[in-house]
Amino acid sequence: MEPADFEARAAELLGAGAHGYFAGGAGDELTLRDNVEAWRRIALAPRVLVDVSERDTSVTVLGRRRPHPFVVAPMAYQRSAHEDAEIGTARAAAATGSTFVLSSQTSTDPRAVAAAGGAADRWMQLYVFRDRGLTDDLVQAAREGSFEALVITVDFPFGGWRDRDRRSGYVVDHAPYVQLSGTPLTPAERHAMHDPTLTWDDIAGFGEASGLPIVLKGVLGPADAERAVQVGAAGIVVSNHGGRQLDTVLSGAAALPAVVDAVAGRIDVLVDGGVRRGWDAAKALALGADAVMVGRPVLWGLACEGSDGARRVLEQLVTEFDSTLGLLGCPRAEDLDASYVVAPA
Amino acid sequence: MEPADFEARAAELLGAGAHGYFAGGAGDELTLRDNVEAWRRIALAPRVLVDVSERDTSVTVLGRRRPHPFVVAPMAYQRSAHEDAEIGTARAAAATGSTFVLSSQTSTDPRAVAAAGGAADRWMQLYVFRDRGLTDDLVQAAREGSFEALVITVDFPFGGWRDRDRRSGYVVDHAPYVQLSGTPLTPAERHAMHDPTLTWDDIAGFGEASGLPIVLKGVLGPADAERAVQVGAAGIVVSNHGGRQLDTVLSGAAALPAVVDAVAGRIDVLVDGGVRRGWDAAKALALGADAVMVGRPVLWGLACEGSDGARRVLEQLVTEFDSTLGLLGCPRAEDLDASYVVAPA
Amino acid sequence: MEPADFEARAAELLGAGAHGYFAGGAGDELTLRDNVEAWRRIALAPRVLVDVSERDTSVTVLGRRRPHPFVVAPMAYQRSAHEDAEIGTARAAAATGSTFVLSSQTSTDPRAVAAAGGAADRWMQLYVFRDRGLTDDLVQAAREGSFEALVITVDFPFGGWRDRDRRSGYVVDHAPYVQLSGTPLTPAERHAMHDPTLTWDDIAGFGEASGLPIVLKGVLGPADAERAVQVGAAGIVVSNHGGRQLDTVLSGAAALPAVVDAVAGRIDVLVDGGVRRGWDAAKALALGADAVMVGRPVLWGLACEGSDGARRVLEQLVTEFDSTLGLLGCPRAEDLDASYVVAPA
Amino acid sequence: MEPADFEARAAELLGAGAHGYFAGGAGDELTLRDNVEAWRRIALAPRVLVDVSERDTSVTVLGRRRPHPFVVAPMAYQRSAHEDAEIGTARAAAATGSTFVLSSQTSTDPRAVAAAGGAADRWMQLYVFRDRGLTDDLVQAAREGSFEALVITVDFPFGGWRDRDRRSGYVVDHAPYVQLSGTPLTPAERHAMHDPTLTWDDIAGFGEASGLPIVLKGVLGPADAERAVQVGAAGIVVSNHGGRQLDTVLSGAAALPAVVDAVAGRIDVLVDGGVRRGWDAAKALALGADAVMVGRPVLWGLACEGSDGARRVLEQLVTEFDSTLGLLGCPRAEDLDASYVVAPA
Ligand SMILES: Cc1cc2nc3c(=O)[nH]c(=O)nc-3n(C[C@H](O)[C@H](O)[C@H](O)COP(=O)(O)O)c2cc1C
Ligand SMILES: Cc1cc2nc3c(=O)[nH]c(=O)nc-3n(C[C@H](O)[C@H](O)[C@H](O)COP(=O)(O)O)c2cc1C
Ligand SMILES: Cc1cc2nc3c(=O)[nH]c(=O)nc-3n(C[C@H](O)[C@H](O)[C@H](O)COP(=O)(O)O)c2cc1C
Ligand SMILES: Cc1cc2nc3c(=O)[nH]c(=O)nc-3n(C[C@H](O)[C@H](O)[C@H](O)COP(=O)(O)O)c2cc1C
Repeated sequence: MEPADFEARAAELLGAGAHGYFAGGAGDELTLRDNVEAWRRIALAPRVLVDVSERDTSVTVLGRRRPHPFVVAPMAYQRSAHEDAEIGTARAAAATGSTFVLSSQTSTDPRAVAAAGGAADRWMQLYVFRDRGLTDDLVQAAREGSFEALVITVDFPFGGWRDRDRRSGYVVDHAPYVQLSGTPLTPAERHAMHDPTLTWDDIAGFGEASGLPIVLKGVLGPADAERAVQVGAAGIVVSNHGGRQLDTVLSGAAALPAVVDAVAGRIDVLVDGGVRRGWDAAKALALGADAVMVGRPVLWGLACEGSDGARRVLEQLVTEFDSTLGLLGCPRAEDLDASYVVAPA
Repeated sequence: MEPADFEARAAELLGAGAHGYFAGGAGDELTLRDNVEAWRRIALAPRVLVDVSERDTSVTVLGRRRPHPFVVAPMAYQRSAHEDAEIGTARAAAATGSTFVLSSQTSTDPRAVAAAGGAADRWMQLYVFRDRGLTDDLVQAAREGSFEALVITVDFPFGGWRDRDRRSGYVVDHAPYVQLSGTPLTPAERHAMHDPTLTWDDIAGFGEASGLPIVLKGVLGPADAERAVQVGAAGIVVSNHGGRQLDTVLSGAAALPAVVDAVAGRIDVLVDGGVRRGWDAAKALALGADAVMVGRPVLWGLACEGSDGARRVLEQLVTEFDSTLGLLGCPRAEDLDASYVVAPA
Repeated sequence: MEPADFEARAAELLGAGAHGYFAGGAGDELTLRDNVEAWRRIALAPRVLVDVSERDTSVTVLGRRRPHPFVVAPMAYQRSAHEDAEIGTARAAAATGSTFVLSSQTSTDPRAVAAAGGAADRWMQLYVFRDRGLTDDLVQAAREGSFEALVITVDFPFGGWRDRDRRSGYVVDHAPYVQLSGTPLTPAERHAMHDPTLTWDDIAGFGEASGLPIVLKGVLGPADAERAVQVGAAGIVVSNHGGRQLDTVLSGAAALPAVVDAVAGRIDVLVDGGVRRGWDAAKALALGADAVMVGRPVLWGLACEGSDGARRVLEQLVTEFDSTLGLLGCPRAEDLDASYVVAPA
Repeated sequence: MEPADFEARAAELLGAGAHGYFAGGAGDELTLRDNVEAWRRIALAPRVLVDVSERDTSVTVLGRRRPHPFVVAPMAYQRSAHEDAEIGTARAAAATGSTFVLSSQTSTDPRAVAAAGGAADRWMQLYVFRDRGLTDDLVQAAREGSFEALVITVDFPFGGWRDRDRRSGYVVDHAPYVQLSGTPLTPAERHAMHDPTLTWDDIAGFGEASGLPIVLKGVLGPADAERAVQVGAAGIVVSNHGGRQLDTVLSGAAALPAVVDAVAGRIDVLVDGGVRRGWDAAKALALGADAVMVGRPVLWGLACEGSDGARRVLEQLVTEFDSTLGLLGCPRAEDLDASYVVAPA
């Protein structure tokens, strides 16, 4: 089985509820599809006769050099995909030099994830719950587990309208680490636990409390990017949450250039949504991103072959990215710029 | 059954003639499809870290505050969809705080509809028939039934070319309130009863005769919008009649911005055609509309589950709209503006 | 059977060879499809509250008032569609007030067609063959048969590359009026009989010899339109020959505006290719055409129901056009202008 | 069987491995498809009433007059398509006056190909391998075989990511002329033999060593085109290697105009990728190309009918091109210019 087959195979392996939860998006899933298409619509413009015998795929994010720009996106409830769960994906990330982001909705204790990941790069994604104690506990776990940064997800005041989950009546089939309640909850019930009062004024506090750099995940516009700089964020993720929150929203790929312009290099810019091939990452970097997050493909690998499958997915992405640098005639990832792409008008 | 399933189910429940009449559009039904697509093509551009714990979905239309922007579009012959008929949809509207517009081609006495709706907001849609007595009677009924406004439909000098009705030979299977003739009529025969001589000069008269504010439904261009202001209309509905009159005509979504510009806030602007999800309404308001009308989805609810079904459709639209405000970071509906959308070039 | 069903039915009735010849286009038939789509992409922009109780569908072409803008395009070998052949279509044209254009490749003697058409408007389409005697004989027949104009087709120095005909090996199955050879010929063989040396210098001569106004059919660019004016043509037909000559060529709809600009009203401009509904004609007139030619739909009518079928097709087009004028709020066809349409950028 | 049927038939005749290798492209094969679509999107704008009785399809490339602009693209391992192999395609080229380009990955000794081709035009395509001795031997063979030019392929520092080959595990099933290794190799293994250190500084050396004009194949941008002029290339081929190297890269058709502008006539510009019909070549010339390369269609002809099939494909292209000149009203190929096309915005 090739990594390209994992998506279809996962649909067979997983129950309809879990599969719908992982694969699905908000509303009519137009954004879900557009996220993938948006990268495809950007054309690559290669140069030739450059010595590409050595490629340098590394990037610098949050001041640290990383072997390549792929970051595993935070994704909830990975135990529903495979018993390897977050430890599986964290190991896959570590094995491939990918930065790993643990979801607040982890189905594994963050300390166990940290132990399995060892010295590898990992960040903690933070949902700010109505019950701030739950969030504080995650921050605490992040510090204990040597998580390098806090990724505060800001596009989730509450959950989006997800038709598949409503139809399937999906209830998470395991006990997640953060016990939002004593009883199993539907996604809609869980979504209601998020704190919709969160504002820009609250952000700096998380950095101070944790002593960790803050990355804001879910920014789509230049004005918000500017505010992220103002409140002291170390980075942002241009993201529509994998098309799971609002349907027909801008894709990360479409939103990226204006955000990059606004940020003007002052903080790091990551992007996600629909990154499926190594060359998608090259386009993101050409448009000014410092790194990319990858979500569902890692999950499909996990679902099909556990940690190994997740690793194979990441390996292929890295290999494709490396090969793209060569074929683009741009052997250093950090030299990618807008001249290597032609975006649609 | 979810509201999303009503459309397909209604196609099974209804006879081919009635279903074709409700579902169909003019000509090759390109506008019918484009009405839905036009909203989808407009991208949402959210902001984050806004306190959205309280959303205010209310809007002001015709000087009255209403709980949300959804208005049930006037639709003919609802008894052919379900025996609950107009009383069913009026009750669904009342239960959800939606303004209800009764069609001139009602299959229920307007006074009975008014009684069922109680204190809820309702408007009377007016077709101007060759036989003015029929129209005058409707105006009279509007006054007796405390209808708040007259919605004069101006895009129907006669009926459009509807292939489905021609093929099915559909004849309305009940006695409508306005007896255009002693015998059952095909749509084409009914269409010929409309008065094609109606002009701008006639409009003010309806306001004077009834003492009610006038809303002109079916305006698509800025010059006509300007004239609507001049003749004293209180509002207009930017509409192509659900794609039932002219095929390949501009969609309401596409026509809206130029009309909003022309009107410049002097009167209210509603829009309809293809509104299917709560976020479509958010886009309409962002582009300057004050409210939206929803047609067929309400009918499918009615056909499947009577008044309850219609209510469920409206409830879902309102919930989706409310949720969209939160996810857009714009908690007050009336604060929506063009910065929240990116329209196609 | 509705006229909309004729196309599919004709495919069943006709042999593969004849059907392929009638229905097919050049190469991959991309232009064949684009001709229809090009009209569809132009949006109608109606006005309301205009008195449209009386519509005037008439237009003036070649100085003569005609009841509506539909002209039956010249089409070869109509006997292969139905034994009513050109007399059938000419009668259908006469019955509906449509101008009829007889193809040079008529399968009926032009004098017989003229006799059947009586006082109705008819034009003779002229192919200039290598053997000029054949062409001269057609001009002579035109004069004898009171044909009102000569339509010289200028986009046919030789035939296009038609995959369907090559595959079917189609040979015309009757004896056409112009005997290009003693033996039945494949389309490719017939195509080789056309005179590819024809130039602008030759055109005036046909007018002088015949005493008839000349219409040049097959002009697609503004420079050629200007030359048509210079050589004294009375009109041009903006046409790509129904997508039968060059594939991926400009559609008449796309080419029309620049030609209209160049001609600036000095001579008449017709357009054809893909006109399928009455509103397509309204768009053509709005973009500056004086009339439109309709090809294949008339043939499908002829194939299915003989002259009656052709008549029903034309009747429907006229009815749809009339109805479009009303629904556009433009009761006089000659008042249509660019303000009634929105063409794609 | 028509040439248009060869592609489908070849898929039946060839094993999955070989077929996938010939037909496939990089990644999701989006560029593979876009190459064909890009030509289709360019519209032809014909002129009429030009004497086109004589057409001159000839072009001048590398200072030599050639009967038409079709060049057979270099394609590897032709023996896997048919035993006639490169001698078959070279003969087909010679028979039709097409310039033949022999791949470095030929499965036939270049001297034997030269002997079969006789006086016909042929060029040698050069891959620069890590083992320069292999490349030098090819240059030597080119001189012995009277190859007229060296086509150095510059878009292949190593091979692209080809999903089909990875799945099929395809191994070339014959002994190619250049023995990259003692054992059969997968495409990926062969790809690794290419020299990724090749730069602009190396190019002039090949010209000096061989005394032959150099054509650089695989240039897509204007800056690289300018450098090609600077290093003394006699020509370039605007190419994305048939969509086999990078997916979602610019098509040759899209990249051509900027390259033509940059080159400004100083050297010859060829283009390839997706040329399927004679009129595609007319578009290429109208946009400033001097000639076009054709790849896969020739292979399908070879696979189906050996040398004869390849010849039939080329004959059809030439005939279509000739016919296009006539129908465009541009009887001399070298008079084609941008006025004959309308490119998408
Ligand atoms: C099943 C699933 C669960 C997710 N859970 C979270 C989460 O807990 N926190 C978060 O910030 N984002 C979450 N996301 C969004 C991802 O972090 C990421 O933004 C998105 O998946 C990227 O798009 P892609 O899946 O197309 O690569 C989730 C996504 C998926 C598919
Ligand atoms: C079955 C049906 C009957 C309608 N009858 C009327 C009518 O009597 N008066 C009127 O002004 N509009 C009528 N309309 C048009 C609607 O008011 C409205 O403009 C349109 O349906 C909105 O588009 P939508 O159905 O896509 O939401 C009718 C629409 C439908 C579908
Ligand atoms: C079967 C067939 C035969 C035709 N024969 C002629 C002809 O003899 N002379 C001519 O000028 N055009 C001929 N045409 C082109 C038509 O006059 C006209 O330009 C075209 O059909 C219009 O496109 P439409 O078929 O999409 O309406 C023919 C078209 C068809 C379909
Ligand atoms: C099976 C195959 C093998 C190829 N081998 C070579 C090669 O050895 N050297 C080279 O420069 N290009 C090679 N190419 C690329 C072609 O020369 C050419 O650029 C491309 O096929 C043109 O696109 P088309 O196939 O769409 O016409 C190959 C292409 C194919 C399809």
